[in-house]
Amino acid sequence: MAGDRPHEFELIKRFFAPLATDSGSLGLADDAAVFTPRPGYDLVLTKDMLAADVHFFAVDPPEAIARKALRVNLSDLAAKGARPRGYLLGLGLAVDWTADWLERFCAGLKADQAAYDVVLWGGDTIKSGDGLQISVTAIGEVPQARAVRRNGARAGDALYVSGTIGDGAAGLKARLDGGFAARFGLHDEDLAHILDRYLLPRPRVELAEALSDHAHAAMDVSDGLFADAKHIAEASAVDLKIDLDLVPVSPALGKIREANPREFTGLLGGGDDYEILACVPEASVAAFEDGAGAAGCPVTRIGEVATGNGQVELHRGGLPVQSPTAGFQHF
Amino acid sequence: MAGDRPHEFELIKRFFAPLATDSGSLGLADDAAVFTPRPGYDLVLTKDMLAADVHFFAVDPPEAIARKALRVNLSDLAAKGARPRGYLLGLGLAVDWTADWLERFCAGLKADQAAYDVVLWGGDTIKSGDGLQISVTAIGEVPQARAVRRNGARAGDALYVSGTIGDGAAGLKARLDGGFAARFGLHDEDLAHILDRYLLPRPRVELAEALSDHAHAAMDVSDGLFADAKHIAEASAVDLKIDLDLVPVSPALGKIREANPREFTGLLGGGDDYEILACVPEASVAAFEDGAGAAGCPVTRIGEVATGNGQVELHRGGLPVQSPTAGFQHF
Repeated sequence: MAGDRPHEFELIKRFFAPLATDSGSLGLADDAAVFTPRPGYDLVLTKDMLAADVHFFAVDPPEAIARKALRVNLSDLAAKGARPRGYLLGLGLAVDWTADWLERFCAGLKADQAAYDVVLWGGDTIKSGDGLQISVTAIGEVPQARAVRRNGARAGDALYVSGTIGDGAAGLKARLDGGFAARFGLHDEDLAHILDRYLLPRPRVELAEALSDHAHAAMDVSDGLFADAKHIAEASAVDLKIDLDLVPVSPALGKIREANPREFTGLLGGGDDYEILACVPEASVAAFEDGAGAAGCPVTRIGEVATGNGQVELHRGGLPVQSPTAGFQHF
Repeated sequence: MAGDRPHEFELIKRFFAPLATDSGSLGLADDAAVFTPRPGYDLVLTKDMLAADVHFFAVDPPEAIARKALRVNLSDLAAKGARPRGYLLGLGLAVDWTADWLERFCAGLKADQAAYDVVLWGGDTIKSGDGLQISVTAIGEVPQARAVRRNGARAGDALYVSGTIGDGAAGLKARLDGGFAARFGLHDEDLAHILDRYLLPRPRVELAEALSDHAHAAMDVSDGLFADAKHIAEASAVDLKIDLDLVPVSPALGKIREANPREFTGLLGGGDDYEILACVPEASVAAFEDGAGAAGCPVTRIGEVATGNGQVELHRGGLPVQSPTAGFQHF
């Protein structure tokens, strides 16, 4: 295959230039991209790195690996209320990469560029003897001074979460443990659902506007619901109270809850959800729910913000319960 | 040392947060940075990755590795006429990293942030079993529609280069070949000069304004003078004529020229210079030289742009000579 592996200039021309459809990218035929910011908008910038067999499985379909690498970054932008505009891609290619693999990787990027209205602005490619490493810098825009931070939650805010929680962590467990589905009585469609949620996060780009319009604080749930709630609580110097009975879950997770409540609670805190956790002032709750509904993004009120000093309180059946996990450490 | 290696949150707090002095970075205590672009300015975005023992030596001082990783990106911004504003840092740390190493790496970044008026906006850190990998995304600003591209050179433009050419390539050769200095009669200060030029590029940030004010086209010389001249020639659909007798060189390279003209010409095309190659219309030549002089950046006229189809013509003593190299391929 070595003969089929092109040098850097060919690599750019063949694989990456077709993704650089923005006029400022010049088809990557320059040292840098040029972007004219829209007046009245701030830029939001984020960077997430992913390594084979840490953040994804090297054997996963290349399309899915590419889309996950882009999506975890778009999720960060969405949580800040920002619409994605462009990204830069750093690729450390494993020594055994093939043109076919890279072609499929770029097809995954192309599909998601269309789905999320974002373009490749630039990047760089090196060899990585240790296995594939992906570094994405994503840049979005938000109306000026309307970016949603972690540190804006106030006592009295309602606590919301988008979508369902726990599927990503369950999908990872099912990947690692062939007996997982049978043990919890999951059907084929349940298993397919959780595996897919781990493989391919759904960044809540559609929720960005409702967040920048109404939320005091937000972040995406990547480390786990409880760990990320603690990040907001600490940054905002408040307490977050979560009613576990209100946390929205998929049918698959519902079955796990019935079979093993302890395992279930662990999965809620397990990470890889890429849903949004948001603190919304009581006066804006109706408008936030309307905005989310109009955008087609399900949101569920799961608790509230109280005066405090950075703690997360979990309740079930009206009684406090202990947090089962401190969140997943990728590093 | 493992006990001295902190987890990610501590890593950010201890090493990286002190570098995130911009209010939009929030000390990295959020998922993303927020940046308010200045009205009337475009943004220039670039990303360069560096891998141990490909783009730098793993045994180099960590301060120098950090500064080189940042500087090669600032060089791209400068060539586009942009002043640096912020950067995002992706770090794949080798398995044997130590807190002392990272402390020195961050001290290098801190020094260059002050030197070049740029701040850390965000980033991510993962483990890299294969050895250190660094991915920097740098963002600068340039007056709107004044970014300098590769594709704007026109027949009749004067061709300029900043600083001296060939030192970086000579420094790399000297690193790899202990007999290099003696073979060409280099003194200690010559050797120190070329070694330093390879270790620590000097991005021509100070030339950015004169470029955006006056240049038709520009890029930084990273692949080598002849290869990069060809990039401009091809992108602009012109020919570039370079008079080798005019290319400015250091005393060290002057000695190599006397000892071995063939070796010398190879070094001119060898890369790692991080000087600026610029095409300036004849009517702006005086203003460009004045601007460069006022900024303290030496520039030398080395040739001209002619009608053509993407060729580079080299001359010496008034006669055409063949290009000795197609440029260095990092990948």
